[in-house]
Amino acid sequence: MNRQQLFQIIQKKKSFLCIGLDTDINKIPKHLLTSDDPIFEFNKQIVDATHHFAVAYKPNLAFYESLGSKGWDSLEKTVEYIRSVTNDIFIIADAKRGDIGNTSAMYAKTFFSTYNFDGVTLAPYMGYDTVSPFLDYKDKWSIILALTSNKSASDFQYINDANGKPLFENVLKTAQAWGTNDQIMFVVGATKAEALQGIRKIAPDNFLLVPGVGAQGGSLKEVAEHGMNDHCGLLVNSSRGIIYASINEDFATLAGKKAEELQQEMENYLRKSGLIE
Amino acid sequence: MNRQQLFQIIQKKKSFLCIGLDTDINKIPKHLLTSDDPIFEFNKQIVDATHHFAVAYKPNLAFYESLGSKGWDSLEKTVEYIRSVTNDIFIIADAKRGDIGNTSAMYAKTFFSTYNFDGVTLAPYMGYDTVSPFLDYKDKWSIILALTSNKSASDFQYINDANGKPLFENVLKTAQAWGTNDQIMFVVGATKAEALQGIRKIAPDNFLLVPGVGAQGGSLKEVAEHGMNDHCGLLVNSSRGIIYASINEDFATLAGKKAEELQQEMENYLRKSGLIE
Repeated sequence: MNRQQLFQIIQKKKSFLCIGLDTDINKIPKHLLTSDDPIFEFNKQIVDATHHFAVAYKPNLAFYESLGSKGWDSLEKTVEYIRSVTNDIFIIADAKRGDIGNTSAMYAKTFFSTYNFDGVTLAPYMGYDTVSPFLDYKDKWSIILALTSNKSASDFQYINDANGKPLFENVLKTAQAWGTNDQIMFVVGATKAEALQGIRKIAPDNFLLVPGVGAQGGSLKEVAEHGMNDHCGLLVNSSRGIIYASINEDFATLAGKKAEELQQEMENYLRKSGLIE
Repeated sequence: MNRQQLFQIIQKKKSFLCIGLDTDINKIPKHLLTSDDPIFEFNKQIVDATHHFAVAYKPNLAFYESLGSKGWDSLEKTVEYIRSVTNDIFIIADAKRGDIGNTSAMYAKTFFSTYNFDGVTLAPYMGYDTVSPFLDYKDKWSIILALTSNKSASDFQYINDANGKPLFENVLKTAQAWGTNDQIMFVVGATKAEALQGIRKIAPDNFLLVPGVGAQGGSLKEVAEHGMNDHCGLLVNSSRGIIYASINEDFATLAGKKAEELQQEMENYLRKSGLIE
């Protein structure tokens, strides 16, 4: 999927919502535990209830890997299921991988070929070599960590260089040149919404994946006001606030409601910006 | 395993060799492809032939993940097999993970509990939050990327701060304080052996995992001379130079020979430094 196609889905669904499938076997409703594959069963019902309101899903790999090969089976089935339900969807492997050369090529193969993801999150520490093999896949995205929303992001991301520029700005500037705006997206923490203006000066055209609206306390309004560009340029993620809206049998219904609420709010911002009629 | 125990294994085996199990289905000898699990079969024979000469194995997760859940099965069987063959071994998940909070906790669970690894490589970009959940496991190691040996390491790792200190030195200094020398190890690229002196000034006591001797062109002699401390403090990795020494039926025998050659050289350096008699 290229940038124009992603924007078309956003316009069609009037939403730039990404739903994080951080599916934790210890947190899903108990009645699902008797099914053959509780993780997949949970995801399936979440997808059924939310896919009209979301433009992207983002399984966080950690939750699947922690279950060993069974978890990978659940992940594979989830991706296939999403594809079977809708074409209008962008699927992100939240893997935060970062390796080089032939290893990085193996990761690219994993996520773009073995599994049919549209994008994968990547850690920039090792530089261009990390991202390069991912760029060989047409219409696939490298989603690079720039500014994260966790407390210890400041340990390194805010270290200023000799010119007073923090590391995350160097990442934005350098990594932007590695590929086109149809290939490179950045992770930018929503709890730093005021920083979004600065980020948009450095990376005006790139899509930004903004985690942390909801449980992590970011404000959707601020993100929309300061982060939107002429292709929307935003995927705003919510995970726990949607998928664990209820831990009872009505979990999917409530997840759908929460997703719809966010979609409605997003529709307003898109309209205000003149990106939809 | 704590630092003292690791040192004892090094003294016993007269080696600080780590063998990278970067097992690529496209590179292993063709006659193995008819077995039920070619990746495991290859690893098994490599382990049989090399474990007397190595103190550590380091499967790179990318190679296993790229095969989906089957790959994870091969990985699990490999770890179990190594444990069944010898107790005197340190097993590293070369995963270069880096996430936060409950996600990072899931990764820690994956590698230290679901799979019985001794250490896992971690990317430092997101700071302390990335490493913190791994530190809760007793006698397990967080192996943090500091200076990598790839070409584009310079993209960010060499960015100087306002005091003229490169990012990798900030990582070494900051991350060292996150845990004890029984918990924190650093990845330091062997091709920068001259930088090892500087690194030892910042992190005199931490173990260093040095990749890249062999295929990536690092010199074992330089690493030993500039990197060794009173607990040896080094795990020097070789992957392709050992495991793909031959692609014929004699692959394991030749891998054993290559591993023994490196062990012999390491024995000399250990003796020279007075760490073994």
